[in-house]
Order: sequence, then C-alpha cells, then structure tokens
Amino acid sequence: MTPHAYGPAAPVVAALRARFGDRLSAARAVRDQHAHTLNSIVPQAPDAVVFPRSTEEVQAIVEACRDGRVPIVPFGAGSSVEGHVNAPFGGITVSTREMDAIVAVNAMDLDAMVQPGVTRTALNSHIRDTGLFFPIDPGADASLGGMASTRASGTNAVRYGTMKDVVLGLKAVLADGSVIATGGAARKSSAGYDLTRLLVGAEGTLGIITELRVKLSGIPEAVLGGVCSFPDVASACEAAMMAIQTGIPVARVELMDVAQVRACNAYSRLDLPEAPSLFVEFHGTQASVAEQAELFAAIAQDCGAGPFEGSANPEARSRIWQARHDAHWANLALRPGAKNLSTDVCVPISRLADCVGGTIADIESSGIVATIVGHVGDGNFHVLPLFDPQDAEEVRTVRAFIDRLVMRALSMGGTCTGEHGVGQDKRKYLPAEHGAAAVAAMRAVKAALDPHGIMNPGKVV
Amino acid sequence: MTPHAYGPAAPVVAALRARFGDRLSAARAVRDQHAHTLNSIVPQAPDAVVFPRSTEEVQAIVEACRDGRVPIVPFGAGSSVEGHVNAPFGGITVSTREMDAIVAVNAMDLDAMVQPGVTRTALNSHIRDTGLFFPIDPGADASLGGMASTRASGTNAVRYGTMKDVVLGLKAVLADGSVIATGGAARKSSAGYDLTRLLVGAEGTLGIITELRVKLSGIPEAVLGGVCSFPDVASACEAAMMAIQTGIPVARVELMDVAQVRACNAYSRLDLPEAPSLFVEFHGTQASVAEQAELFAAIAQDCGAGPFEGSANPEARSRIWQARHDAHWANLALRPGAKNLSTDVCVPISRLADCVGGTIADIESSGIVATIVGHVGDGNFHVLPLFDPQDAEEVRTVRAFIDRLVMRALSMGGTCTGEHGVGQDKRKYLPAEHGAAAVAAMRAVKAALDPHGIMNPGKVV
Repeated sequence: MTPHAYGPAAPVVAALRARFGDRLSAARAVRDQHAHTLNSIVPQAPDAVVFPRSTEEVQAIVEACRDGRVPIVPFGAGSSVEGHVNAPFGGITVSTREMDAIVAVNAMDLDAMVQPGVTRTALNSHIRDTGLFFPIDPGADASLGGMASTRASGTNAVRYGTMKDVVLGLKAVLADGSVIATGGAARKSSAGYDLTRLLVGAEGTLGIITELRVKLSGIPEAVLGGVCSFPDVASACEAAMMAIQTGIPVARVELMDVAQVRACNAYSRLDLPEAPSLFVEFHGTQASVAEQAELFAAIAQDCGAGPFEGSANPEARSRIWQARHDAHWANLALRPGAKNLSTDVCVPISRLADCVGGTIADIESSGIVATIVGHVGDGNFHVLPLFDPQDAEEVRTVRAFIDRLVMRALSMGGTCTGEHGVGQDKRKYLPAEHGAAAVAAMRAVKAALDPHGIMNPGKVV
Repeated sequence: MTPHAYGPAAPVVAALRARFGDRLSAARAVRDQHAHTLNSIVPQAPDAVVFPRSTEEVQAIVEACRDGRVPIVPFGAGSSVEGHVNAPFGGITVSTREMDAIVAVNAMDLDAMVQPGVTRTALNSHIRDTGLFFPIDPGADASLGGMASTRASGTNAVRYGTMKDVVLGLKAVLADGSVIATGGAARKSSAGYDLTRLLVGAEGTLGIITELRVKLSGIPEAVLGGVCSFPDVASACEAAMMAIQTGIPVARVELMDVAQVRACNAYSRLDLPEAPSLFVEFHGTQASVAEQAELFAAIAQDCGAGPFEGSANPEARSRIWQARHDAHWANLALRPGAKNLSTDVCVPISRLADCVGGTIADIESSGIVATIVGHVGDGNFHVLPLFDPQDAEEVRTVRAFIDRLVMRALSMGGTCTGEHGVGQDKRKYLPAEHGAAAVAAMRAVKAALDPHGIMNPGKVV
C-alpha cells in the first residue's frame, strides 16, 4: 500500500484518557506487554493501550483515531504468532480483555453470541451444561475475536471446520466509525456480499470485531482416541490422507515427527515409541466411534503402522492431548535458553508427505533444531525452529529456512499459512501465492473500507 | 448505487462480432431467451449474447465492455429465479454454455477444477467412476458458475454445506479486465482476504467467474431414506429441529406441506398420506445409516409421526426424490395455465415452525394457491405461489405476500433468501436485513472493484 501519513498520537491519547480514565494506559510496561510478535520480528509498542467494554466504546476510540489519523491495533489474548499485535506506526492498541461477556447462548439454534475477548475455554466452561461445545481449538487459549481475525483453526478443524465456518455473523466497527452487523441467526443466506468472511481473516485491517455469533456443536456421545506409530513420516501422512479420502469423519489427526515425539516423551513423561506418530480422535455414537477406529486401524496397518487401539478412557486421552498441546513447551525444553517460533504452511493433502519430508531434510541439512507437529487431515503442519534471538546469524538462518518452507508449500499448490495469518512478515508472500491481480483486488478493498490506512497498518496488504 | 452512465452497445457488439463471429448473437429470439426472471419481474433483454470458451475470451469481452462502458450480464444455465440474468440497462450477456470443460479431477485431494458452464449433473456423470460426487443439489441442473454466484445450496446442504463451503477457489475476470485467482488447492488458508467468498454470492456484480475448484465428497457406502408423515407442520419442523440438535448427521431433511404432498401424489403418482411430511436421507456406513434412521424414527415418533421405515432400495428412494425434485411441476399442475415462482427465506431453526405456520396461515387468508417445500434442516424453505402474470392484481397480491413472507423471516432473525440470491427484486430488503452501514460497506466494495458499474448492474447493490 502507499504509505499513509499519520497524525500525532498524543492528542488522541489525551482525549481517550479523558473518557477512559484508568482503562487507558501509556505505561511503558503495558505498552511493551501488548507489542510482541512470538516471532523473530522486533516488537514495536503502541503509544497507549485502551480497554473498552462495549461496541460503543470501541466506536468512540475509532472515531478519535479516525479524526486524528492515528493507527489502531486490535489485541485479543496476544497469542497470534505473526506480529499482528505489533504497532509499527505507533497508535492506539485496543485490547478486548474487558469485552469478555457471553451475550447469549441459543441452545436450540446451536449458537452463541459473544464479545471478542471471550476465550475458547471460557466459552466452553460457560456452556458445559448445555451438552454443546465450541470446537475450534488452536492450542493457545486465544480470544474468539483474535481467532476470527486470523482465521484460526487447530486440531478439530478437519471435522468441525475453521473460524471461517463457525463464525455465523459479527458486529464490527469500520475505519469510518460505522458499526456494521453481518451474517445473522439463520444457518445460511445468499443475501448480499459475504462481509462476515471478508472480516474473518482480515487481521483487524478492515475493522474491529466487537461481537461474534459462533456455531456450537453437540458434545459427542462417545470419544475414542489414541496414538499410532509409523515407520516413517511418509507412511504416517499416507495413513492420514487415506483416512480422509475414505471418508472417515475423523475429529482430529495430528502428526508429530520423531523429534517432537522425543521432546514430548521427555517433557510430558510419556513413553511413546520414538517414531513418527499420529494422534487421532473419533467423535460419534459408541457404535460409530468403534467403527471409525476399526477402519482407521486397518488403514494404519496397511501403511506399516503398529497396532492401533483407541481408548475411551478420559484420563488417558487427556494425557495424550495435553502432551500435544504442550508440544510448544516440549520443543522449547530441547534447547534451554533458546526461543522458538511456530510457523505453518498448508498443502493439498496429496502433497503432504512430500512437503513434510522435504522440510525434515531441510532441517537436517541446515543444522536447525526444529520439530514438526501438524493438523495433517487438512494438509496443515507447523514447524517450530529454536533459535537465539540475540544471534543475528541464527535469526537469518531461521528466516531463510521459513522462506524455503513457504516456497516449498507454494510450489505444491499450498499456502504460506494455513491458520496463523500473514501478519507483518508473511505478507511478502501474498503476491507469490495469489498473484499480483488478486493482491491488487485486496488492496482495492482495503482502500475502499480504510482510505487512510488506520486499521492495523503494516499487516496483510 | 449512484446511477452510472453507460456507453452505446453497438460499437462493442460490432467489435465482439469481429472476434467471436457466430459465437455472438444479436437475434431477438436469442436475446429474449437469455433474459428471463422465473419471477414476476418483467424480462429485459441484452443487446447481444456472446459464447466465450476461455478465461482469455471472457477477458477480451470485459475489456471491450470496460472501454465502452457497456454492462455485462453473466449467464449460466438460466435457472436462477430472482432476475439475475435480466439486462435492465442492456449490454452484453456472457453465456458460459461453451465453457463446459472439466479441467481436472484430483481424486487424491477430493476436488475438481471446472469451467463455470459445467452443470452439477455433468460433473457427477464425469466423476461417477472415481467413488466421489459433487454434493450440492439445488434441484435444477444449474451451472456451477451460476450456483457459486448465487451462493446456492439445496437438499444436501444440511450435511455437505453450501457453495460457500465447497468452492475452494476460483478464477475470475474483474471489471478492469484483470484476471484473479483466489483460494487454492490447500484445504485451508489464512493468507489474505477471502476473495473466494467475496465472489461467491456476488451474483456476477464483482466479476465473472471463469474457473472453479470445487470440493468433492466420497459416495457414501450406504444410503437410507424415506418419508415420514406428521399430524401438522409444527411437529414436522420440531422433528427436523430435534434431529439437528441431537447431532444426527442427516444428509437431507425436506419438508412438504400438505398442499405440496397432494400435488406430488397427483403429479408423480405417489400414494403418500395426505399430511405434512419429511423426506429424509442418511449417508454413511451400513451400521451408521441404520443407527441414524433408528434415532430419527424415535424423534419422529416423539413428535407424533407415524412409523418411519427407511429404505435402502435405490428405486424406491429415487422415486421419492424424483417427486421432490418435481415439486415445481407438481405445483404448476395445480392450476393449469398459471405460472409459479419460487421464493425462499431462511430462519433460525428454532423459529422454523413459527415461520412456516405463519406463512401457511397467510396463504390461506390471502386466497393464494401456493405450496411449501423446504430444506428444513437449515431452517430454509421455499414457497411456490401460482399466479397469472397477465393479471396485474394477482401479481400485486403475490408480491405483497412475498413482502410479508420476507418481513416475517426478518422479524425472526432470518434472511430474505437462503439460497436464491437477491437479484433484482429482493435487493430492496438488504437494508432491513443487514442495516444501512453494512449495505454501505457492500457498496464501497462494489465501487472499489467496479467503479463504472458495468458488472451485472441493477443486481445486489
């Protein structure tokens, strides 16, 4: 985008302080806390952080920033990994921390209205007694507004979809201060442009989400899960692909490479065979999960796996999935003192084994310490390289590795990110992925809805 | 939108004739054939109809129309029902009839690349031997480009989603003549704005789709289906709602009111009990469909239905679904000489019984002859009023009835159309449904991508 000229933040900060009092902070510690990247990108703090409680308060902030031409950076739980919450041009960070109300749960219609600061675990605790659950699980206890903005998904997406599928509608404040409501309570509509899905994944660059209607699912009658070891990564990917192709409605199918399995054994005190493994889970009726597990076991065996026995025992399952969710920490423990970052790509499932295999070869040849975990039912996987952020050479090595990873995925018809968003750093890959004309169309949409570039500048386009 | 000034069509027609030869027609009959509304809206013919065969040829047409400021109206199979193919400002109709190539079928990745003129039955015939099928079934043998443009769905949507869910990516020519590629072969992505879903449902007003990548599904191992009669419409709706709420993965659940059942008995020579009925179908393994049918039968019985016995016999099922698909013709036969139109609304499933009940009461009190069929698992239903298009009073009565139907749906949190699109006539309901600010945002997007309003003017915004 053409660089925009921004106004001074100080008058806007002063005006907002008058309205928000101690729900605005310009303290260094608070500003720094709200500007991090969980990445190799340098943190860039905003001029102030505001904690609104309502759509109207967000609107007031946007109006002040609009009039002063000051950037606005939305902040949810801060768990995004591509620099979305950085403020490269300063400005006002809008934290949704105090917008954490569950507005309504409509059990009959299987949906809930929430403010954007509600986290997925908060929503799931709240609705526990309804027999329903919110299925999208990106690992971190992210806010639903942030998850919508980055088009997040996670382990359950292969069965339940991504945020694109479960956000039925939303309320958002646009750059001009107008409040739009999109979507609705009906399960489908063909009335007008799909503004819901234009805002989902826009990473706060087109507007700030202030309310969401999300689809809920029935808690399955039965859940069966377990771990299955494979002789190599290719056969694990093959098994995942065949399970999808034969239509097993698998709820989760997660790959760990041998490096990650070793790390998890050490960190989570498991004794999994040191081999590439699939963590799988089936949801349904008692009869259905048993049937799914049996079909999967046959496929796995054909692919050279050891025997697979699913367990319905909640403790055993919970221990396994806790290890899966702690993969990040297990990875960090491989090199004390180092940092890691989580990058992801997604490829057509037919190319998954190639892409994961090529990536492991690259890790080995470039001398990086990195593990791989992935939502392989979608063709999506994460690579977690460890590095010393103070060592410029290591940062360069990791960045070059990520470049090669993305180019490998794109060459296979894949995407530079399956579920993290492009944020600050990956936006450079958009022309290679989508072509110049599509990026120009994205920029035209951005310019139409945010002519002065105040909404989360420096991200996406 | 601000009215646009269009240039004369004649020079553009002449230039295109030089390039397309007899693949351009300005004959009255051809122009009339491509301008109909399947509605009470008056047909409005274009100046000429062109039959391109490739993206490059569509691009050439768009460039000529762009330079001459002449409207472009895309035309698929002509089965849309809200005046999408009308040319209120004249111009060039772009038929995709000769863009009917199935470019690739990727069985491993469960997708296919097609040109927009491919119809759903053509695609399904082509892939018959792969064990896969394309699940979206709007009844008519619509083109996939048209189905994408109207965000179509149909009987299977409750299980397999709508065009929003199965279009993974597309190629389109925008108003400036640029060709964009959106989405990709990966199953999910969070890289940039979701241009795919911006174009799906845009009714040709943002660009012309010239290629689509669509998701395929595995042909289920077993299919079980049947018809179940209820004492009244409310209990049929209740049963559909409970089936969804309890998580039965029903593949189809279609309501017919008693008027439609009578019409189908007469037209399709069935002997269904003359009562509101649900046509249901279950897909899965042998064990799974039996279990689903059993669960459904219990719910139906709780709701006062007669016994339900699903049949796995393909002939019996095919006879039933043929009757469902012939509902339109059965309805027409109720009043020989009259025309009918199909209008649809969609409401939250908790309000479905209210909305259908209120609509039946309205039909009775307003003296209209109309039947109701619906994809009630989604809260979506169609009303088919019969009328004499020459009788202005009857047309007024039907239009007033549709106004009340839409307002009833909107008052229940629903939408003015679940799967037909807004076309020419229903666009007037967008402000009531989405609010002025959201409509303004849609218009801003339209103006950004089509500043001179040449893409299917008079539709949507």
